[in-house]
Amino acid sequence: MMKACAALACAFAAGTAIAQDGPTPEEQAQSAIETRQAVFKLLGWNMGPLGGMLRGNVDFDAAVVETNMSRIASLGPMIPDLFASDTSEFDSLETEALDNIWTNMDDFADKASALVDAANAAVETAAGGDDRATRQAIAAVGQACGSCHDDFRLD
Amino acid sequence: MMKACAALACAFAAGTAIAQDGPTPEEQAQSAIETRQAVFKLLGWNMGPLGGMLRGNVDFDAAVVETNMSRIASLGPMIPDLFASDTSEFDSLETEALDNIWTNMDDFADKASALVDAANAAVETAAGGDDRATRQAIAAVGQACGSCHDDFRLD
Repeated sequence: MMKACAALACAFAAGTAIAQDGPTPEEQAQSAIETRQAVFKLLGWNMGPLGGMLRGNVDFDAAVVETNMSRIASLGPMIPDLFASDTSEFDSLETEALDNIWTNMDDFADKASALVDAANAAVETAAGGDDRATRQAIAAVGQACGSCHDDFRLD
Repeated sequence: MMKACAALACAFAAGTAIAQDGPTPEEQAQSAIETRQAVFKLLGWNMGPLGGMLRGNVDFDAAVVETNMSRIASLGPMIPDLFASDTSEFDSLETEALDNIWTNMDDFADKASALVDAANAAVETAAGGDDRATRQAIAAVGQACGSCHDDFRLD
């Protein structure tokens, strides 16, 4: 039981390593940046092979489209929550997130929502078995990514 | 349309930055390590406040439990897929993943599956409105995390 309890404490402490006196505001901002980058890492991991299918260097597989688009749809709603902390004042920290995210949060959240809608549509299309429509649905998700990057990500 | 196409290419390239001659096996392994760390970062981000509720330094909120546990349930199935690439031969790369993951992949996947089951159970319990049972369900998810860390993560 000791071991289970130690593991439990360990699990709960994950991602919140805190110095004795607590993290400084800059350390908190750095931590927020790293956490939000994780969601884009996983979005890219899921999107990568689907983009490859469009480019023709990955075999088309509707089952993979369905799985990955479903994962993208589940990741999308985390995006606005991950940006709840406004880190724009910490000029020394490295991030591709533009400051206007926090002055246009509704628009930013709408774009995350559009990504989720496009990904859910792609799941349905892939399940429907129309490969051509599925490729178009993948492209639509890519455009939803790009639409947000255009406005809110450093070029 | 040019802009949308450029954005699309950009979106698809995310997370797969590749040097002119393609990445070396070690670079591929490093990329795989960073991508799989992203899922644990997001698991920790979702679990953090729930652990805080058990410790009493975060106000109990069943709606947050429901949202975050649902997110954990959607992240869990990505874990085995993120470890599809066996990086154990790259001794110089920094990782907490133990080599026995790749000699016990079925067991590793079972533990990810147990995490998903526990998280889904917590979603249902939180929705049911029994705070005491919800706290126990959070603890059960923490134990599912810890059970996998015990076997497959560097102490």
